[in-house]
Amino acid sequence: MKNDNIKTLQKLQSKFSKVRNWDKFHTPKNLSMALSVEASELVEIFQWMTDEEIIDKIKDNEFKESIGDEVADIFLYLVRVAEILDIDIEKSVKNKIVKNEKKYPKNISKDNAIKYNKR
Amino acid sequence: MKNDNIKTLQKLQSKFSKVRNWDKFHTPKNLSMALSVEASELVEIFQWMTDEEIIDKIKDNEFKESIGDEVADIFLYLVRVAEILDIDIEKSVKNKIVKNEKKYPKNISKDNAIKYNKR
Amino acid sequence: MKNDNIKTLQKLQSKFSKVRNWDKFHTPKNLSMALSVEASELVEIFQWMTDEEIIDKIKDNEFKESIGDEVADIFLYLVRVAEILDIDIEKSVKNKIVKNEKKYPKNISKDNAIKYNKR
Amino acid sequence: MKNDNIKTLQKLQSKFSKVRNWDKFHTPKNLSMALSVEASELVEIFQWMTDEEIIDKIKDNEFKESIGDEVADIFLYLVRVAEILDIDIEKSVKNKIVKNEKKYPKNISKDNAIKYNKR
Repeated sequence: MKNDNIKTLQKLQSKFSKVRNWDKFHTPKNLSMALSVEASELVEIFQWMTDEEIIDKIKDNEFKESIGDEVADIFLYLVRVAEILDIDIEKSVKNKIVKNEKKYPKNISKDNAIKYNKR
Repeated sequence: MKNDNIKTLQKLQSKFSKVRNWDKFHTPKNLSMALSVEASELVEIFQWMTDEEIIDKIKDNEFKESIGDEVADIFLYLVRVAEILDIDIEKSVKNKIVKNEKKYPKNISKDNAIKYNKR
Repeated sequence: MKNDNIKTLQKLQSKFSKVRNWDKFHTPKNLSMALSVEASELVEIFQWMTDEEIIDKIKDNEFKESIGDEVADIFLYLVRVAEILDIDIEKSVKNKIVKNEKKYPKNISKDNAIKYNKR
Repeated sequence: MKNDNIKTLQKLQSKFSKVRNWDKFHTPKNLSMALSVEASELVEIFQWMTDEEIIDKIKDNEFKESIGDEVADIFLYLVRVAEILDIDIEKSVKNKIVKNEKKYPKNISKDNAIKYNKR
């Protein structure tokens, strides 16, 4: 596929790490830890707010940029961990969507987010 | 930018959710929770392994697909949370890389992953 | 202090690990990963439920036991990580409550859970 | 059981919350989020360190207190979530240890931390 901004951003971050000699820190375990820490930073912003408050506050540019930063941090560690484990994100995502279509058939899963193995 | 597989995959997932009537579950809080849970599932796979064992086992196709599945799950919740909060991932990531260039100057950060606010 | 069920439970878990030769897996990094994974398992149970649904379902004994199991798993990894780093939980908790009293003075923090460094 | 520092600390924290009118924030979902965020803060401290570096640095009093603070934060949200869901931590932990004895028999689990449902 020619259209690939995932790989373009992945290469930018790869270079960022390389010029700082950070590749030695970017082991699979360390990156999985950093990725989960970044996901938690998004949770931390939302933890004491209601959904209504979040939807309202996202109109504020400074708040929106802080959320964009957290989304970006998660994305950046995700492309790093995928790179060092030689995982093609686009291919994996498409593959997973096909699996999810089978695990959550429309008729059974309609209005119901219960995990397939808990039904 | 015409080249955009992030948005292409985002739309696939958006449709997946819509036909199952899951949008009502996909509030900002719930999605941040689901995203951090998926990040933890990657951590769970790695927690008792050494980095050497992970690098070795990734040659096994079944294991590699299981990692690809977790990477995909994280990606899918990330594009969902970005969508409902109207955050452009590519733009946010590029913006964050510029910020990171300033927070982690090459000369100071070389060989040193200490968070900028702990230096 | 003679009254110490934290240490009593900690010793039970320490023995559990020792007879299985698991101490070699229980390094600080691995235990911090396992602890965060267990915390996420509680999040996973709650992620698509409303608070009202949780409060209602907790009357169900099977559901309540599943929550008790997750609470226990978190507790068990917490006492393990404390043990290997020689941290006295009771002392640390009392010390932290004193710090929190200063960081969140009653008059300022009343009705307001904003983190002290974000005020 | 008369010996119960878990409940003693739980009551201290319960009072801390009550005088700040924070009980309204302490819903099951919010507390599970806060608990996982605190667990991630421990992960964050360890993420770029090796186990050897952690073991060495824990001799430093300031570092040790910072770890003690994180352990305490996790403990404090754990007792809160247990309290609002009416879960007896000591009872749940003892119950879970008995379950774990069955799930991880000594002969099978010796030297092997593979999750029982992955064997």
